[in-house]
Amino acid sequence: MSIVKRSQPYTVALDAMGGDLAPAEPVRGAISAAKEHGVRMLLVGDPAAIQAELAKLEHGGLPLEVVASEGVIQEGEPSARSLRTKPKASIAVATRLVREGKADALVTMGSTGAAMAASVLAFGLFPGLERPALGGPFISLIPRTTIMDLGAQIDCRPSQLLSFAALGCTFSRIFLEIPNPRVGLLSVGAEVGKGNRQVQEAYPLLKSSGLNFVGNVEGHELFLDRADVVVCDGFVGNVLLKFTEGLAHAAARYLQSSLGPDSPAVRRLQELASAAESAGGPLFGVNAAVIIGHGRSRAEGIANSIGRAKALLDLALVDAMRAQLESVLQRADRPAEMK
Amino acid sequence: MSIVKRSQPYTVALDAMGGDLAPAEPVRGAISAAKEHGVRMLLVGDPAAIQAELAKLEHGGLPLEVVASEGVIQEGEPSARSLRTKPKASIAVATRLVREGKADALVTMGSTGAAMAASVLAFGLFPGLERPALGGPFISLIPRTTIMDLGAQIDCRPSQLLSFAALGCTFSRIFLEIPNPRVGLLSVGAEVGKGNRQVQEAYPLLKSSGLNFVGNVEGHELFLDRADVVVCDGFVGNVLLKFTEGLAHAAARYLQSSLGPDSPAVRRLQELASAAESAGGPLFGVNAAVIIGHGRSRAEGIANSIGRAKALLDLALVDAMRAQLESVLQRADRPAEMK
Repeated sequence: MSIVKRSQPYTVALDAMGGDLAPAEPVRGAISAAKEHGVRMLLVGDPAAIQAELAKLEHGGLPLEVVASEGVIQEGEPSARSLRTKPKASIAVATRLVREGKADALVTMGSTGAAMAASVLAFGLFPGLERPALGGPFISLIPRTTIMDLGAQIDCRPSQLLSFAALGCTFSRIFLEIPNPRVGLLSVGAEVGKGNRQVQEAYPLLKSSGLNFVGNVEGHELFLDRADVVVCDGFVGNVLLKFTEGLAHAAARYLQSSLGPDSPAVRRLQELASAAESAGGPLFGVNAAVIIGHGRSRAEGIANSIGRAKALLDLALVDAMRAQLESVLQRADRPAEMK
Repeated sequence: MSIVKRSQPYTVALDAMGGDLAPAEPVRGAISAAKEHGVRMLLVGDPAAIQAELAKLEHGGLPLEVVASEGVIQEGEPSARSLRTKPKASIAVATRLVREGKADALVTMGSTGAAMAASVLAFGLFPGLERPALGGPFISLIPRTTIMDLGAQIDCRPSQLLSFAALGCTFSRIFLEIPNPRVGLLSVGAEVGKGNRQVQEAYPLLKSSGLNFVGNVEGHELFLDRADVVVCDGFVGNVLLKFTEGLAHAAARYLQSSLGPDSPAVRRLQELASAAESAGGPLFGVNAAVIIGHGRSRAEGIANSIGRAKALLDLALVDAMRAQLESVLQRADRPAEMK
């Protein structure tokens, strides 16, 4: 895909049928985003359903356009097959809008698997990647710690962990404005040689990567400001992501039952718990700006996700990530003495 | 090792030099345990250091005895080598006391690696195991959910996950009194076939194990009462264990900074955070009752750990676990049509 220089105002294609609360919340989120972020919104989905939502809301004069699609790919459906059997599904139509230059970025709260598969088909992967990656800060207590992969790449080879480091560093440096992000490798002991085979083999790759590698990081050290970017297999990352969500909700319920629903602690803990729903994260490694949000996101979270898509475009983050990945992978291919 | 029927009062060998606060807290814990649990305590360590602690405390008439050892194996030392170079280290002497029938159980807050290596040497493993396992409930919000392995077995083969299920089920049934414990396989999707290769291969083994297997369990489902025993690779379990500890401490600090240290929510969250220090867990798979506690445990946690060692003996849990493991492994070896 050719890289075109984007210019404001941006057009964002929103999968208006994606997510547990579609199309009502995506439509409300799009209206907010058009107001707050000055973006033009393409609402992709069932025109009647979208118009019914629009009819309930004030949106006069806002740059909103409905683009018709047919069907939705649900979370849990086999993505590649569903894309073939439902070529007009909302996520497929939305990615094509970006592919054809009719939109600058894609935002979806729908099936993560479908968004990944459709994005790979439509935009292609960065050279050196076999799959895209998911990542970002997801623990609101450590909002500047980027963790990846969060479930896109399971059973990683060590070189995949290296690519997460390159992508995560670029995100950390440009999006979070951390000058020289420290990269840590999630493991079960601080010393070199601790960890499973995957971690042991990734260690030397990261050490000679030219990135600011600080070594292994244990689970509790995530909270001790040891690293800005924490690299792990998508299996481990996804377990952690969902575990954190479950734990935060359970802790909020526990405190609520003993302190009452109006306790400030309960409210704060609920804010912590809902962080994942407050804004989506980028899909890393595809040649386009894609934000995938939580399926339970409400309008505010969806508007925040659209704001993030705008930020990715403003910062030209996709190009920067591709360049950083290329440089790290080239270095890894060179003989050791040249590093 | 021959299995002898234990009878009260039990004698517990305590590694008095193990843990961050040794020997002061182990000595205090031993005194409490002798009072509360009616056990006879063998305090293994540097006699002068232990006597100095005893001199500060009231312990007249309690069945406490000091057994001399020389040196300590610290957390992080290479365990097997250290056991060879320090054959009189406290953990080595304490395991020998159990091996020789001078004590009924072992309790330590010292190096987990050293306790595992010394226990394997002294007591031997259950047939079918290559390493012991660590597990138990460690998340105080779900105090009846047994999770294993927590870091003893990294890079598990599927058959190792099966053995965790057998050991964890016995613990859940007998120690936690859950009649027919549901076993879940920690994964990244609920459906069969979701997960990494390890999980995909373990699934059919668990399904035909005769245990009450309920399928894959995702990270957030730990908090939704889907399973009583959750099985995972020691890498994943150890990351989760330490992550939970770090998260709980960070959340308590966060609420403390905004609500003040005397807020009831902060106190409750700190209780949640310190659960791991409140009592140790059994070492699974060795032919003796062994409790390994948190290195930061204080006297109360150490006394609780000694109480747990007594409970393991009362319940004859070690024999029950060995029998359950044997039965599950025999069934796994049978042709499918006989299951």
